[in-house]
Amino acid sequence: MPNISRRGCEMPSSPIRKLAPLANAAKAQGVKVYHLNIGQPDLPTPQNGLNALKHVTRKTLEYSPSEGYPGLREKLCGYYKPFGIQVSPDEIIVTTGGSEAILLSFMACLDPGDEIIMLEPGYANYISFARAAGIKVRTVTSTIENGFALPPVEAFEEVITPATRAILLCNPSNPTGYVYTTEELLKIKDIVLRHNLFLFSDEVYREFIYNGEPFMSALTLGIDQHVIMIDSVSKRYSECGIRIGMVVTRNKQVHDAVLKFCQARLSPPLLGQIVAEASIEGVEDYLKACQTEYKARRDFLIEGLNRIPGVVSPMPQGAFYTVVSLPVDDAENFCRWLLTDFRLDGETVMMAPAAGFYSNPALGRQQVRIAYVLKIEDLKRCLQILETALKQYAAR
Amino acid sequence: MPNISRRGCEMPSSPIRKLAPLANAAKAQGVKVYHLNIGQPDLPTPQNGLNALKHVTRKTLEYSPSEGYPGLREKLCGYYKPFGIQVSPDEIIVTTGGSEAILLSFMACLDPGDEIIMLEPGYANYISFARAAGIKVRTVTSTIENGFALPPVEAFEEVITPATRAILLCNPSNPTGYVYTTEELLKIKDIVLRHNLFLFSDEVYREFIYNGEPFMSALTLGIDQHVIMIDSVSKRYSECGIRIGMVVTRNKQVHDAVLKFCQARLSPPLLGQIVAEASIEGVEDYLKACQTEYKARRDFLIEGLNRIPGVVSPMPQGAFYTVVSLPVDDAENFCRWLLTDFRLDGETVMMAPAAGFYSNPALGRQQVRIAYVLKIEDLKRCLQILETALKQYAAR
Repeated sequence: MPNISRRGCEMPSSPIRKLAPLANAAKAQGVKVYHLNIGQPDLPTPQNGLNALKHVTRKTLEYSPSEGYPGLREKLCGYYKPFGIQVSPDEIIVTTGGSEAILLSFMACLDPGDEIIMLEPGYANYISFARAAGIKVRTVTSTIENGFALPPVEAFEEVITPATRAILLCNPSNPTGYVYTTEELLKIKDIVLRHNLFLFSDEVYREFIYNGEPFMSALTLGIDQHVIMIDSVSKRYSECGIRIGMVVTRNKQVHDAVLKFCQARLSPPLLGQIVAEASIEGVEDYLKACQTEYKARRDFLIEGLNRIPGVVSPMPQGAFYTVVSLPVDDAENFCRWLLTDFRLDGETVMMAPAAGFYSNPALGRQQVRIAYVLKIEDLKRCLQILETALKQYAAR
Repeated sequence: MPNISRRGCEMPSSPIRKLAPLANAAKAQGVKVYHLNIGQPDLPTPQNGLNALKHVTRKTLEYSPSEGYPGLREKLCGYYKPFGIQVSPDEIIVTTGGSEAILLSFMACLDPGDEIIMLEPGYANYISFARAAGIKVRTVTSTIENGFALPPVEAFEEVITPATRAILLCNPSNPTGYVYTTEELLKIKDIVLRHNLFLFSDEVYREFIYNGEPFMSALTLGIDQHVIMIDSVSKRYSECGIRIGMVVTRNKQVHDAVLKFCQARLSPPLLGQIVAEASIEGVEDYLKACQTEYKARRDFLIEGLNRIPGVVSPMPQGAFYTVVSLPVDDAENFCRWLLTDFRLDGETVMMAPAAGFYSNPALGRQQVRIAYVLKIEDLKRCLQILETALKQYAAR
């Protein structure tokens, strides 16, 4: 029997999904599992998007253009305009979720052995995609004590080598919820220019900012030839399952190279594009309501978490995640135990161990990522479960 | 401005899609373009699949499991059974089209620098995915003179090196339409066992075999631990746009490694899975009708092609493609000219230059791949256009 590849062996399991078999086993026993582990919003998809499905009149569900339908790309240009992002449809490539946008733009811009700088804790799957593409990840560590703010410029300079080709920023940040300030973004801009780097800017959470500040896209920094913006409709319109994301760049070489990878995989999902296009317009009130709801959840959750003895969470200003420090030795073991052993009246919670969001897992050993994608009533119950579980875990 | 990657530069443009801008320009001038270049069937998607869309009652279009919904995987097991393929749902991973199935199983099984043997002419995107994964492709050449039959075993042995890790077979073959015989498959089996290789078997065209022989899957060869079967509903149910494929393997190590890559990209398309699941059952008559239709088209097209002076096409026994030799110096130039210069009463045809289906493009310089995915009336018109164009091209 032939052996699988080294990269197949070394590919990390998703910290967000690796405990899924344990959750499924618990559910099979009749246990109710609250999913705080995954950014799967419970809010409804915009009605226009759902209606579009009922009105599909095609008789053949055919391939779409590799770069996505022009209609969707045109609507996206209109969507970006209020954010000061001026792009044309030719500068947008529709991908199979933000995930594919990351993988293919990594491949188009970076070669095996090239280095990319990411902040940690960072979205775990960036590391997976970097590994798939053979790219070396160097990390700059943000800390819970500083509320996961941008580390000083010196920390970036320290990890830059001749092989460094790019910086990746997730703004607002998954998993920390941190929103970078204009000052911080200008520091990143300086580093990018000084070292002639690409800047991958994952901006999928731009609609979810709670501090009243306007969102600042990397595409407004005046370094267009360096910027590859990653986007997705998944979170914005609560339609993660349709798998529609996008690569947005004004760098034509990057655009054309990404497009070649996109041609190989033929086309992004047709039905997802239909839903996405219908979701874009007439959703001002919808988006405002989503933001209000997430803000209320955030306020409720973070206050509740910090009231549990030994639990510490900064106040995230964006996205719908927070990285939380727990009074346990090993948060992954605790998360497993919650699924395998602990029940409060037949219920438990699932969280994502944060170690997988760090290149040095030790840094996140006592932390979890929590997604506040459940309604307040459920979050209230989750807090009860967590508090009881922590007591019982300490006493076991 | 930073440079893009070497792999981004070297990534080939799809021979199937690279001339699309010329076709679009022709259409913008009001020219009717017959698409013989792409395997985009014009047949309708099964009504059950289309109906399923109208009956989606979910309010949130959420992520699905990384491995795909259990219901779809169960139905697929039932679909495979009549082909003698005995698999359980745990041996199937749903992917974003057959394309993703290929890329992710390459990554899970092979490391950069590893070698894979493919037949040429072969599906061009295999080479693209191999390049994306850093895998070296070695080819064994089948010839139009032999109707693209399997070359002798010696030809495989000649290209096997210590770095050889796998053979890829597409059966029935895209682009040649060749269907491998039991004898040929047993030869492949021997080579696979002798050299302890993986066998990637792309079987997406199994429903389209016209010689009355039953289809023989690589999963019936008795070398299960070596086989990764690539599948897709795209062609079978004329639903290429929903992007649903699958990796089917009984090798648990391979399965688990592919799943880790799948977790990183979160999930396959939700809506596509709904359509695919609804398409599987109650389509015996549908599939029979499709086969009859494609067979009639094949008979009509191949006879017509061979009647044009200087044009040669073997009689393909499966799929819906044929590789055709044309009386031109350079088929790509001819294909371009058809789109840019030639019109017959305001109409022209688009074909895929076959050079991109060979690792040595010179071998396919005079050939094109034609997909017979248009109705006979249109194919008739395409033959007229092609014949007239060839005359005019020779005389220009």
